[in-house]
Amino acid sequence: MEDKVFGKNPVLEIMESGRDINKLVVLNGSKDNTIQKIIDYGKKNKVVIQFEERKKLDRLSDNQNHQGVIAYVAAYDYVSVEEIIESAKVKGEEPFVIVCDEITDPHNLGSIMRTANAVGAHGIIIPKRRSVALNQTVAKTSCGAIEYVPVARVTNIAQTLELLKTHGIWVAGTDMDGDVYYEANLKGSIAIVIGNEGKGISRLVKEKCDFMITIPMAGEIQSLNASVAAGVIMYEVMKQNKR
Amino acid sequence: MEDKVFGKNPVLEIMESGRDINKLVVLNGSKDNTIQKIIDYGKKNKVVIQFEERKKLDRLSDNQNHQGVIAYVAAYDYVSVEEIIESAKVKGEEPFVIVCDEITDPHNLGSIMRTANAVGAHGIIIPKRRSVALNQTVAKTSCGAIEYVPVARVTNIAQTLELLKTHGIWVAGTDMDGDVYYEANLKGSIAIVIGNEGKGISRLVKEKCDFMITIPMAGEIQSLNASVAAGVIMYEVMKQNKR
Repeated sequence: MEDKVFGKNPVLEIMESGRDINKLVVLNGSKDNTIQKIIDYGKKNKVVIQFEERKKLDRLSDNQNHQGVIAYVAAYDYVSVEEIIESAKVKGEEPFVIVCDEITDPHNLGSIMRTANAVGAHGIIIPKRRSVALNQTVAKTSCGAIEYVPVARVTNIAQTLELLKTHGIWVAGTDMDGDVYYEANLKGSIAIVIGNEGKGISRLVKEKCDFMITIPMAGEIQSLNASVAAGVIMYEVMKQNKR
Repeated sequence: MEDKVFGKNPVLEIMESGRDINKLVVLNGSKDNTIQKIIDYGKKNKVVIQFEERKKLDRLSDNQNHQGVIAYVAAYDYVSVEEIIESAKVKGEEPFVIVCDEITDPHNLGSIMRTANAVGAHGIIIPKRRSVALNQTVAKTSCGAIEYVPVARVTNIAQTLELLKTHGIWVAGTDMDGDVYYEANLKGSIAIVIGNEGKGISRLVKEKCDFMITIPMAGEIQSLNASVAAGVIMYEVMKQNKR
């Protein structure tokens, strides 16, 4: 399996992360500094570099905003939930896990991943069904975080929450009704459940949460963008735990 | 809000300007070349096209010279900075303003607008140049917040920050270096300056800020998505001011 990553910064980050690049396709005659840096990096790491005209890059990227560079990288690997928990223990930290219950927009998953890396979360859990999977839009929006944040893909989120609990992890769901997020105790081992963009958290999943937290809304709009809501909560966790 | 534009050349011009067209009403069976061009343009951009008899067009245009075509275009109204400040005073609240210094992605501006409504901010200020303007993507991403959050479009952000200061508003810039956002005093009249997605806040604008705040980053990734960063800061303002 192979994935395409395009755009200067996403390609540079993915190269710097040490992930294997199968091939680079670069705009012929580009004078761009970042692209030059990518070429140097590629040469140093003996990556095949193919120089092409803009039309070819447009076609290879399905006319998305490639900015003159496309990288072919090995496909994304998923981990197990246990590996996420184990990785926290190895670091001597209490597990901090983000559970995305049916996030469907790849931009949201990518952005959540970017924030997860920023707050030092140990991993993200997504369901196999009714959820966006790891793809190049997620990778691009994550700005490289996809290389650092382990993702587990599970069959059943409700069962997975039970598993987290057996490991002593508190499960907090985000909802319209609940404690104001900054008044809730989010210290220690914790999993934050983020709901679907339109429907929120499903009933079955909600029943498995230890408690619900909410973000106050002062205006006319009923909800925040899912990645913004996740960001506000994740930073509160980071703050309370002084990570 | 919606404006009607009629006449072949006015409609063609407005389409070519890239402004969002909500709907086209075209004279049934028209053989006119320009109208054909407008129809092609509309189809290419997935605009709803309604074919009607002359009488209907006469009525829709109040019997003005429609030449066989009427376009319904989204009308986004901007306000002045003073109107934003005044609207806070009318509510008996201290002004809370979001300044977007060259945000270029309409999804980010829309998402910031959605959060701005959620935290009870009084308005958003954007520059006329090097910034996305209000358009249909912003409107869509804002989830309706565009109807509630006043937006001022200014020629010079640095000068505008000076103006805000004369009104007793503290100006906080967001940056890689600065006080940790939750340790900073964000109480009272405040403007939060959000920088461009790639470059951050420009030097001239930074010099006008009263102080800089930063969001801690614990991982490998250097920055958050602009709308997530804005959301984290805006919620801290809301929290400190108990809005």
